[in-house]
Amino acid sequence: MNFALKTMLQHRSIRKFTSENIDDPTLDLILRAACNGSTMGNMQLYSIIITKDKEKMERMAPFHFNQPIATNAPLILTFVADFNRFNKYCEYRDAETGAYSNLQSYHWAVTDAIIAAQNACIAAESLGLGICWLGTITFNVDKFIEILNLPKHTVPVACIAIGYPDENPELTDKLPLEALVHYETYNDYNKDSIDWLYAEKEMHDNTKKLLEENKLPNLARIFTESRYKKYDNEHFAKILGDTIKKQGFL
Amino acid sequence: MNFALKTMLQHRSIRKFTSENIDDPTLDLILRAACNGSTMGNMQLYSIIITKDKEKMERMAPFHFNQPIATNAPLILTFVADFNRFNKYCEYRDAETGAYSNLQSYHWAVTDAIIAAQNACIAAESLGLGICWLGTITFNVDKFIEILNLPKHTVPVACIAIGYPDENPELTDKLPLEALVHYETYNDYNKDSIDWLYAEKEMHDNTKKLLEENKLPNLARIFTESRYKKYDNEHFAKILGDTIKKQGFL
Repeated sequence: MNFALKTMLQHRSIRKFTSENIDDPTLDLILRAACNGSTMGNMQLYSIIITKDKEKMERMAPFHFNQPIATNAPLILTFVADFNRFNKYCEYRDAETGAYSNLQSYHWAVTDAIIAAQNACIAAESLGLGICWLGTITFNVDKFIEILNLPKHTVPVACIAIGYPDENPELTDKLPLEALVHYETYNDYNKDSIDWLYAEKEMHDNTKKLLEENKLPNLARIFTESRYKKYDNEHFAKILGDTIKKQGFL
Repeated sequence: MNFALKTMLQHRSIRKFTSENIDDPTLDLILRAACNGSTMGNMQLYSIIITKDKEKMERMAPFHFNQPIATNAPLILTFVADFNRFNKYCEYRDAETGAYSNLQSYHWAVTDAIIAAQNACIAAESLGLGICWLGTITFNVDKFIEILNLPKHTVPVACIAIGYPDENPELTDKLPLEALVHYETYNDYNKDSIDWLYAEKEMHDNTKKLLEENKLPNLARIFTESRYKKYDNEHFAKILGDTIKKQGFL
């Protein structure tokens, strides 16, 4: 088992950091790893916004739903799907503009940004740091655009809080590989296979704890009635769709 | 410099593979790394389709524009943004269905799938394998859905060809970090900064070779007039948008 595999197999989100700052050589390694991932046609359709300033973190915190790590982390990296730089490059080289103002181009930039973000995560973890994705970045995406001063043809799509771990949580309970992997064609699920594939997760202590806290009969209903509710999802989906359009991708 | 960082910093796409197959323990490590990445609320909103069957590769090859690796690779992994499994879980637990039939949910699943795909890439590379992303997966996305027998609430969004390298290409020319990284807020580009940031890339031997081959005056125009043209992008964007809708996310 090599160190890269160990780093990935030992991954779990860290939500409590020490006050230790991340020095510049360490940050530089994280950024270099982030920027060496695969990208669509080598266009590098992403930007990385470094947030260290606590005032900036405080401004963004409400839109990260005031998760403590949104302000306690020494470093937040926001990854932006970015066609602005490439479009400007085209403009200044008398190439056709407007070729990349569509959903396909948006998808390329999203992919590039997430590849870069995941490289940053593995780099950080390999250096003894802990990370946590802030999925909230795509919820009130319009607010992050405003605060980070993002131009047209950019959308922030990934956000990572990084710091030295001040907790040592167990690995997260995951579905067995059989639940996630299909051979040659998709093997659809039915009641039996769902029961079987979710059995271990449903018996897990974490799940039992969540059921007690939420006074709900099963894990699925914690998601649909407490965590990610239909009304909220549709509300944020509307903001996201409007923003992708406003930013010039639809 | 640890081995995880080395693996990422030495990444370049491999487009020529030996005939050596990938054995099951190696594939198992790749899949385990893929399935241990961060995911939205630990919902694990992705599936991985393993393609080893050459007949299946042949069927998909035209929609990967007959890139040789689409049939020559011993292994292709297609990563699917998948809310089908979680929706079925909700259904069989009498939770509200329809909470995750929107663009926000789609975005979560895309992110989960790409994180898993990038972990698979790093795992494979750490084991001496070479990888290449097939960005074509989102072009004729409807055809891949058909061939892979994908149900509603799934969309294939990442595709990786994997094999033992039969070439040793140089590292790809990349923009300098200064082009990609912003401090606190986005620092927009102008003619001067674009000239400066793209200078090294424009002087690169790869670029000179491309200009000769394409008989075009600069790299930007190779993209807009040869590689990814407006008409084609808009054509594939239409298919992608229609598919996301048809698969139940819009």
